[in-house]
Amino acid sequence: MSLTRRVALSGVRAQIQPWRRLYSSTELDVRKGDRERLVVIGSGWAGFGILREVDKKKYQTVVISPRSYFAFTPLLASTAVGTLEFRTAIEPVRRKGVELYQAWAETVDFENKSIVVQSNLGAGLDKDQGGEKFTVKYDKLVISPGAYSQTFNIPGVTQHAYFLKDVADARRIRQRILSNFERAALPTTSPAERDKLLHFAIVGGGATGVEFAAELHDLLHDDLPGLYPTQGTKSLVEQHARITIYDVAPRILGMFDTALAEFAERHLKREGVTVRPNHVVERVEPDMLHFKGGEAVSFGMLVWATGLATNPFVARMKGIEKEPSHQARILTDAKLRVLKEGGGVIDDVYALGDCAIVKDGPVLPTTAQVASQKAKYLVKHLNGDNPGTVPDFAFKNFGALAYVGGWRAIMQGESQNVKGWAAWVIWRGAYLTKSVSWRNKILIPTLWMINWLFGRDISRF
Amino acid sequence: MSLTRRVALSGVRAQIQPWRRLYSSTELDVRKGDRERLVVIGSGWAGFGILREVDKKKYQTVVISPRSYFAFTPLLASTAVGTLEFRTAIEPVRRKGVELYQAWAETVDFENKSIVVQSNLGAGLDKDQGGEKFTVKYDKLVISPGAYSQTFNIPGVTQHAYFLKDVADARRIRQRILSNFERAALPTTSPAERDKLLHFAIVGGGATGVEFAAELHDLLHDDLPGLYPTQGTKSLVEQHARITIYDVAPRILGMFDTALAEFAERHLKREGVTVRPNHVVERVEPDMLHFKGGEAVSFGMLVWATGLATNPFVARMKGIEKEPSHQARILTDAKLRVLKEGGGVIDDVYALGDCAIVKDGPVLPTTAQVASQKAKYLVKHLNGDNPGTVPDFAFKNFGALAYVGGWRAIMQGESQNVKGWAAWVIWRGAYLTKSVSWRNKILIPTLWMINWLFGRDISRF
Repeated sequence: MSLTRRVALSGVRAQIQPWRRLYSSTELDVRKGDRERLVVIGSGWAGFGILREVDKKKYQTVVISPRSYFAFTPLLASTAVGTLEFRTAIEPVRRKGVELYQAWAETVDFENKSIVVQSNLGAGLDKDQGGEKFTVKYDKLVISPGAYSQTFNIPGVTQHAYFLKDVADARRIRQRILSNFERAALPTTSPAERDKLLHFAIVGGGATGVEFAAELHDLLHDDLPGLYPTQGTKSLVEQHARITIYDVAPRILGMFDTALAEFAERHLKREGVTVRPNHVVERVEPDMLHFKGGEAVSFGMLVWATGLATNPFVARMKGIEKEPSHQARILTDAKLRVLKEGGGVIDDVYALGDCAIVKDGPVLPTTAQVASQKAKYLVKHLNGDNPGTVPDFAFKNFGALAYVGGWRAIMQGESQNVKGWAAWVIWRGAYLTKSVSWRNKILIPTLWMINWLFGRDISRF
Repeated sequence: MSLTRRVALSGVRAQIQPWRRLYSSTELDVRKGDRERLVVIGSGWAGFGILREVDKKKYQTVVISPRSYFAFTPLLASTAVGTLEFRTAIEPVRRKGVELYQAWAETVDFENKSIVVQSNLGAGLDKDQGGEKFTVKYDKLVISPGAYSQTFNIPGVTQHAYFLKDVADARRIRQRILSNFERAALPTTSPAERDKLLHFAIVGGGATGVEFAAELHDLLHDDLPGLYPTQGTKSLVEQHARITIYDVAPRILGMFDTALAEFAERHLKREGVTVRPNHVVERVEPDMLHFKGGEAVSFGMLVWATGLATNPFVARMKGIEKEPSHQARILTDAKLRVLKEGGGVIDDVYALGDCAIVKDGPVLPTTAQVASQKAKYLVKHLNGDNPGTVPDFAFKNFGALAYVGGWRAIMQGESQNVKGWAAWVIWRGAYLTKSVSWRNKILIPTLWMINWLFGRDISRF
């Protein structure tokens, strides 16, 4: 849900009714037995890591998340073009021993150990709507709601750009790509309109933006040309389709070593992807990007991938220590316990994932890898008999990967860098190994094979 | 797109501009060469059968369809509950040698051999909107736009019921089922509301309604109980979920032999599905069915499957002979040529599928099997050197199948009836054999196996 929509919802929220609080506690309490109640906010890499592995005999595990699934984010770009299907990039939250309330967390009362949540299953049922509010009491609380997409408050971004943080985003992007091609193929569409419709603009040259450009290139290169009519000797695709990556920085993939980033940029350019560094977006119109300095470029679809912004739930939280910078993440100690404003920790409250960092710890990237390791660490802590004796969290860097198209990737390891086809094999191997369920461990290679043999499916529904 | 929406759109339609007509012809003409142009309206069982098999060297094949895919309708009920994934029930229309205009057919001018179409890719791009109009000239025309869902103009059906004619319908149904369960699991939902939310009502006891009830039963029985919290000894599902089939007739599955239909009804009842014959719906409210006689029943989701109604495009067509009954289908001769009003045939124009019947021919059901056989027949006719010598169309009945849940089915053959587990094996075998692409021939059994081993995926996005 976009920031705008989220803000708009607060207007329709109902008041909390006292009997509902009671009702809530009653149902959960009956099933609790002599366990402690562990409430997990969020179902991303951090929250899902906790809910999967925590000891269900020790904890009544209750998840508060607006989504009923965990999204395996590194595969989203693949699903957005049909290299994989959407369901291979998600895992259901609901499972034996895990209770889910599909809801947004609103406020936390650390004193009374309870949180107020609002269901996102409103009266319309099909859409993300403000539903009823109720409270959930906790014995232990894990705060891991993630972050929002960063738009820098640039006018028009929220309205006209596509993000790529969730499988629902990936679905919208795939719909839009295929719809633009169908529209371009209509006889009423002029050549100039075709150029516009088939210009795919990506703002943000980080791993997300580059991987999406790479996957889109594969779709445009491998599958579409033969399916659309030729004009003269060239197909509609070859004649009109273009991909451009814009970034504010002088080069893309700034988080990688220069040699790797330069390899990626050279490779992308050779494959026909345009890279435009030093471009600052000033505003976005429905089909036009306006840059600082006066340049304007029309597009058929805009994907926005410029990093993360504070989660509004975290922004509302009071009484805790937060990062002084604009991101204002929650500060924790090295045992991931939330720090109290004015000193000390808040008992039984932990924070991890994109919304939190360890105070005075090493500077870590905001990645799935960090969130996932923190979750593993905290599970060990929570499941253990004597939590006080657990050593501090320490990050082990397993390297960074990015797919750059045409079966080529880059990998920056702790001791060694790999690029090209070998890195692509590592890329696929890593994500297949990391995929969670057996279901997806079977489906992912099956779809890789099928789509390689028969081409990606271009049906849109 | 619902009837209402379709009607609403006509208000925003642009006027046809002469230059657009010209533009249209120019592009297609360049690519035509010395072939005849075959225009196919629709991409269902009839249209897709033609476009796949017709000789592309002989015909420039142009498809006019609002959808970019063919839907394998017998598997839609399976996809609506996650026994299969949506993409296993579709095949893309666009392929080597086939041009697609994603558009609705508006009117036909038999005199000048041209049709006016309107794109359904409007300015919003993501939704089914009225786009621009243009004309397409044909040398030969195949009319196979299918039929609409029959609502008998009962108030509220179009607004509050779900149909099951397309993969987009199946997707909406799956979303709604899972959303209702999540909503029922909220602590703010009272037991009475849970009863309502988890009452799945199906109006229409034909093959579509029964197969959907059967698939839904499997989901509710096999996968959901363990995933939702227990209250006392029973899970939320066992305590509140119900499936009811309503039909106007005294028994369901009227097109099957009595012995088979009775077996199906007994089996469904034993599995916990309620069958209510002799029920006539008077009106539908957002969560309430009102029957003749005053009975009213609340529901959480309503699926409407009471047969077919005339396609508005066919209703608008003039100068041709139509069935005198309310369905008003197009009448053809036994070579599937459209009959001219007042006698004779219209040259080079054919009609088949749910929108057409052979005049004075045997009464055939409106099924995929008939449409598919007519398509095969017409392809032979079109591809042959001497169309005049082709014998008349003759239907060969391969029997009728219906899945009734719990790995049981019924099959009514020409000479023999089969029921139970053996019929289910035939059911699965038949649809696997009939599935079109290798892609789906691999994916369908893979998903059957995965979902049997690990359960259906309950993620909703």
